[in-house]
Amino acid sequence: MQPDRAVSFLLAAFITGVVSAATPTDVTDTQREQTLKERISAANIGSYIESMTAHPTFPGAPFARTVAQMTLAKFKAWGWDAKIETFTIPFPRPTERAVELLTPQKFVAKLHEPAVPGDPYSEQQSEHLEPFFIYGPDGDVTAPALYVNFGLRDDYEQLASLGQSVKGKIVIVRAGGMWRGGKVQLAAEHGALAMLIYSDPKEDGYYRGPAYPEGGWRTPDGVQRGSILYGKFPGDPLTPFVAADAKAKRLAINSPENTVARIPALPLSFADAQPILESMQGGVAPESWRGALPITYRVGASSAAVHLKIKYQWKNIEIRDVVARLAGTTFGKEEVVRGNHRDGWVFGAQDPHSGHSAMLEEARVLGELYKGGWRPKRTIVYCSWEAEEQGVIGSTEWVEAHLAELQKNAVAYLNTDVTGPGSLRPTGSSSYTAFVTELAASITDPNSNVSVLKRAQLKAEADIYPRPGSTAMGMSLGAATLDALKNLIHLDPPGYGSDHHAFVSHAGVATVNLAFGDDLNMGSYHTAYDDYAWYERFGDPQFKYGRVTAQINAVAVLRLADADMLPMEFTATARSTDDEVTHLKNLYASVKSATDRSNRAVELGAYQVLTDPTQPRVAPPLKTVPPLDFSALDQATVAIKSAADRFEAAKAAAASAHLTDAQIANVNSALMNVERSYLRKGGLPERPHYRNELFSPGRLWDTVPVPAIGDAILDEQWAVAQAQIPLAAQTLEHIAAAIDTSTAELKKAAGERRR
Amino acid sequence: MQPDRAVSFLLAAFITGVVSAATPTDVTDTQREQTLKERISAANIGSYIESMTAHPTFPGAPFARTVAQMTLAKFKAWGWDAKIETFTIPFPRPTERAVELLTPQKFVAKLHEPAVPGDPYSEQQSEHLEPFFIYGPDGDVTAPALYVNFGLRDDYEQLASLGQSVKGKIVIVRAGGMWRGGKVQLAAEHGALAMLIYSDPKEDGYYRGPAYPEGGWRTPDGVQRGSILYGKFPGDPLTPFVAADAKAKRLAINSPENTVARIPALPLSFADAQPILESMQGGVAPESWRGALPITYRVGASSAAVHLKIKYQWKNIEIRDVVARLAGTTFGKEEVVRGNHRDGWVFGAQDPHSGHSAMLEEARVLGELYKGGWRPKRTIVYCSWEAEEQGVIGSTEWVEAHLAELQKNAVAYLNTDVTGPGSLRPTGSSSYTAFVTELAASITDPNSNVSVLKRAQLKAEADIYPRPGSTAMGMSLGAATLDALKNLIHLDPPGYGSDHHAFVSHAGVATVNLAFGDDLNMGSYHTAYDDYAWYERFGDPQFKYGRVTAQINAVAVLRLADADMLPMEFTATARSTDDEVTHLKNLYASVKSATDRSNRAVELGAYQVLTDPTQPRVAPPLKTVPPLDFSALDQATVAIKSAADRFEAAKAAAASAHLTDAQIANVNSALMNVERSYLRKGGLPERPHYRNELFSPGRLWDTVPVPAIGDAILDEQWAVAQAQIPLAAQTLEHIAAAIDTSTAELKKAAGERRR
Repeated sequence: MQPDRAVSFLLAAFITGVVSAATPTDVTDTQREQTLKERISAANIGSYIESMTAHPTFPGAPFARTVAQMTLAKFKAWGWDAKIETFTIPFPRPTERAVELLTPQKFVAKLHEPAVPGDPYSEQQSEHLEPFFIYGPDGDVTAPALYVNFGLRDDYEQLASLGQSVKGKIVIVRAGGMWRGGKVQLAAEHGALAMLIYSDPKEDGYYRGPAYPEGGWRTPDGVQRGSILYGKFPGDPLTPFVAADAKAKRLAINSPENTVARIPALPLSFADAQPILESMQGGVAPESWRGALPITYRVGASSAAVHLKIKYQWKNIEIRDVVARLAGTTFGKEEVVRGNHRDGWVFGAQDPHSGHSAMLEEARVLGELYKGGWRPKRTIVYCSWEAEEQGVIGSTEWVEAHLAELQKNAVAYLNTDVTGPGSLRPTGSSSYTAFVTELAASITDPNSNVSVLKRAQLKAEADIYPRPGSTAMGMSLGAATLDALKNLIHLDPPGYGSDHHAFVSHAGVATVNLAFGDDLNMGSYHTAYDDYAWYERFGDPQFKYGRVTAQINAVAVLRLADADMLPMEFTATARSTDDEVTHLKNLYASVKSATDRSNRAVELGAYQVLTDPTQPRVAPPLKTVPPLDFSALDQATVAIKSAADRFEAAKAAAASAHLTDAQIANVNSALMNVERSYLRKGGLPERPHYRNELFSPGRLWDTVPVPAIGDAILDEQWAVAQAQIPLAAQTLEHIAAAIDTSTAELKKAAGERRR
Repeated sequence: MQPDRAVSFLLAAFITGVVSAATPTDVTDTQREQTLKERISAANIGSYIESMTAHPTFPGAPFARTVAQMTLAKFKAWGWDAKIETFTIPFPRPTERAVELLTPQKFVAKLHEPAVPGDPYSEQQSEHLEPFFIYGPDGDVTAPALYVNFGLRDDYEQLASLGQSVKGKIVIVRAGGMWRGGKVQLAAEHGALAMLIYSDPKEDGYYRGPAYPEGGWRTPDGVQRGSILYGKFPGDPLTPFVAADAKAKRLAINSPENTVARIPALPLSFADAQPILESMQGGVAPESWRGALPITYRVGASSAAVHLKIKYQWKNIEIRDVVARLAGTTFGKEEVVRGNHRDGWVFGAQDPHSGHSAMLEEARVLGELYKGGWRPKRTIVYCSWEAEEQGVIGSTEWVEAHLAELQKNAVAYLNTDVTGPGSLRPTGSSSYTAFVTELAASITDPNSNVSVLKRAQLKAEADIYPRPGSTAMGMSLGAATLDALKNLIHLDPPGYGSDHHAFVSHAGVATVNLAFGDDLNMGSYHTAYDDYAWYERFGDPQFKYGRVTAQINAVAVLRLADADMLPMEFTATARSTDDEVTHLKNLYASVKSATDRSNRAVELGAYQVLTDPTQPRVAPPLKTVPPLDFSALDQATVAIKSAADRFEAAKAAAASAHLTDAQIANVNSALMNVERSYLRKGGLPERPHYRNELFSPGRLWDTVPVPAIGDAILDEQWAVAQAQIPLAAQTLEHIAAAIDTSTAELKKAAGERRR
């Protein structure tokens, strides 16, 4: 039997709410963290990126297999118990692609990224993956084109008031604002025949900064490749719920049950998009619809006839997740899982190797510690995923393959993906808020030499860069904000854009995503120019932020692996639940007030009186927004707050108690179950793979508060919205109950020991 | 002696605050208004524009003299007592103009507006006035160029935090946001050697809509000509306070007392500006600094060396104000003055002939009424001004020539300038708020067939066009807003951009500016393309809004000329004074909070910690903003409110009283003096020509609340700001006293009659 141990210092810090820059109690732990941080080498990180992105790394590429083997060999050499887990997925690649403007004048889109002076990778043309969207149907469409801004829900509402419809047309929109698959889905729902998505220089090009190779921003020819999966479930579009292994039953490619997009689509560079946009007729687009091309953005009956053709050859390919373990001791069944994807759209120097290389360097130094005799209390699992870009496939299939073990044993999943210069921008499960705050206090920002917590604090309190909060990638580059009262770093909800997706939404595993980058340049995003030549100049010069990413994640893994009681707490959970419910109510209020405003304008006759004949507007139909009763959610939110307070009181009372390992394991098991209790039994309506009541995506893979209700509000399905409120509230009551179970376990353990 | 008359219906309507669509009491008046409105002909308006802009109309142009004679002849033919009043002003015209980029590559700016297909006027090249700025010094400067956004005060603050200075440089800014002369002044104050102002397509070009000749927006070659007078006084830069007649004493061209700009400057088209902007180096400009050219806007140590040369030939020219009168009867000494300028920068079809043609058509129909036997109670004076574009010269010199009579007799000055499609956007003296509201209720919008009041109401309450509120011209195109409580149209302060300027700021004459145009296209502003070919397609197709402009102004003149007691009231004056004082306090609060924020960021070390090495920032110096005591202004504002209430009570009490003409004249004289009481004795500090305490421009000819104080706040001259507060408050107390004098006159008259 193990000796008794005091509830850890970490936990004590959380009880008082005081955040200290100090690290764990005993000198050995502090020294170990120091060693870990010092040994992490920026030069190593650079060399991993250079060697692993010498050729394209997309799934199915010859070099992708080599990189998997390189990764496996490294883990093994560093002392890890490593293996490759393989899945088989469909990978359609186009055999024909064409976008042409037929009238008013002929123009043939290049659909190609040429070589750039001084970038040898850009000359490896025959190896590149051509620009296209994966997982759409074949198509050969000739139709008028219509511009619909970003192609979001609101854009279609506005389009109607402009007297236009996409029915029977080819929709052209700019990238950004939402998951591109959601855009294709919306266009299909509105009757469009096909879709073009282009990168406007406003979000992604010269408007942001000098273009590559002078600067790091997108060239006129850069194309944002991407997946256009319909967001009904993540991962392999043909094997929901089950791992895509040999025995999996697969949906047909044309089955309505799969997540393949419903209409054909292609991505365009802005050089290719400009002649199409320029040839359009009709009224001038509303100001918020205008990008940074030197043209008049217009929305109207188009004289632009466009021909779009795409034909895919569907092949099955193998993808390889490299999974490496360091076995735990005291709580050896429990697992700290850390992962990052390895596949790029072409080379992927920034996306994903900025994060993947940091993860490898963590594994190297943790392996050194292990070789030096250190043994973690929990098992550490490092995962190098493949096929993230196609729809978080490698990670989702792995979660599906190991669901039962994960739900029993996983204390957290740590992810990074893209990282780079700037402030820490952490997202994840609110139960780890205090943990991340303390972590951030112990890591030094390489540019300013203050802690990354201090830097995040300054960013929130006294930013000197007023600038746009989001990018073409729909990724927020805002820094962490701080809860000023509590002096805690704020973890934004994890979102759905990377490999933590299935862990959160399907398995209910707590997640922490630690990346840097509000000064990030993402001008090569999903292009062939995201290569080592670009990266060493514009991605992360000297790999300083790769190093700090490895440092914060390595220390996080070390602390999570060696903590006795898990460093979770739930007052932040209560706040974050309250935030989500507030966002939901605000969403309802904004739909209601927009409807009221619109109705009022119609009723007052504003459309008749104010219409400018050169810019006609059409009165929208009158609509009714019934009241919604949110009280069940309010009650459940209060219940979570009360439960969180009871847990804090129990922790305070147990502070001096000495617990056995078995007792701690019992408490930890209850703590893990708090995250699992976010899952709704049977999953969300019509999307049963999504089970997390609060942190599943909306039906368009967008960010929607309490999605079972939020989606219904956005779709103006009022009866559904009302019916879902008590069901969602029930899940929140389960969260409160799970916290109470943790409290009971803790009290029981402390009480037993005192007796 | 005249028969007694009841206080007019108009006045009664104001007392109750009820706005009625009905027009004056007796059938004759109503019929007369109806006749007036019906006889106003859109076709006539079109023909005035076509005939009067057949050739360029700038002062000194051969055709300008012809147009003056045509105007004089028309007034005479229509039965007016008309004459020409002549002034002599300097009109420097360039003999040399050059803008060249020397490094990194050679580029020579065209500085020329070529012919456009389908526009015969654009082919009359030899007649055009070349693009230049009038009233600057000669210069021959070679220096690095630096981009400073719009060149406003805040832009220079931000420039410092970007680590840059304009000292010894040529500043290039985009047009818009402020009077261009103020921009040149600010650049000179910051040590710049010369200035270039270009029209960015964001404010003024393809970003707004299709370019001429496809649409009406600015072509890449369109140049915004303009005056760059320093705003110390309006009018002829060499003859402050006195009319520029033969006997006037003139300042020397190089005297520091005149208003000639201090550094040389030239305007550029965006085609000419782009190569210069494109060649710049340094960090990326802040987002709010970026225009719509397809370039990266940058701000930094420039490799762009620019050569600017301008040489003027100063000549004296004659300008001609055509002044026409219909003599009044009962109150024949009192004058209703209506004016519009006649000179364009080149042809001037829109600016000024959209307004000038409406004014002519008013004169024609008023003349017809006169010929038919109608005689106005007050004298009507119609003025066709010249040399407005150079600095409201024709009107200012005339005001200076006739100051004593105007101050004694002018009941109002009505101005239009540019008008066109859209809602009424009235500005003027708040004392005419109820008058303008009732007027707007009696005029029908030609596009929607509702009253222009109703249209303005809808615009304020339920606009269907979310769009930018201001244009490159710094002119607000927002519609009138309504005071919802009172159901009164809101008159924005008159501003300084047209011929009412000297009437308001120097003479203290009440002004009403009635123009239409929130749907206005001003894409040819100050270019040679502002010609009849452009105008009939994009300015005011079918001259519908020219017609409605003539209707509302003709009825306004008729009502003002025939009213017994002047239709003024002062509750709106109290509100508008309160608004100005509130704006002043808000200005102080915003300077204070910006300083606090800046100080805090410096003190917290944000500039050290957050600086992105690719976008460096420099900590600004710490500053102190002392408290200001505004209580004297608050007391004066309350005094005006109380005085206004007392006047309303007296009006109500006098409603059924019958007054003699002499009594009415006494009351009217007191009412006129309320507007005169806005003038500060001795004028504003250092700018004695400006006397209106509330409605003078700021020192940069910008809009500054309570300018004697507001300018000091903007310049962070805190002791001056505090010292000016009691002086400004004294003026406001004079306004309250003048209202009380009106009340006393009214009570006296009503009391005398009752006795």
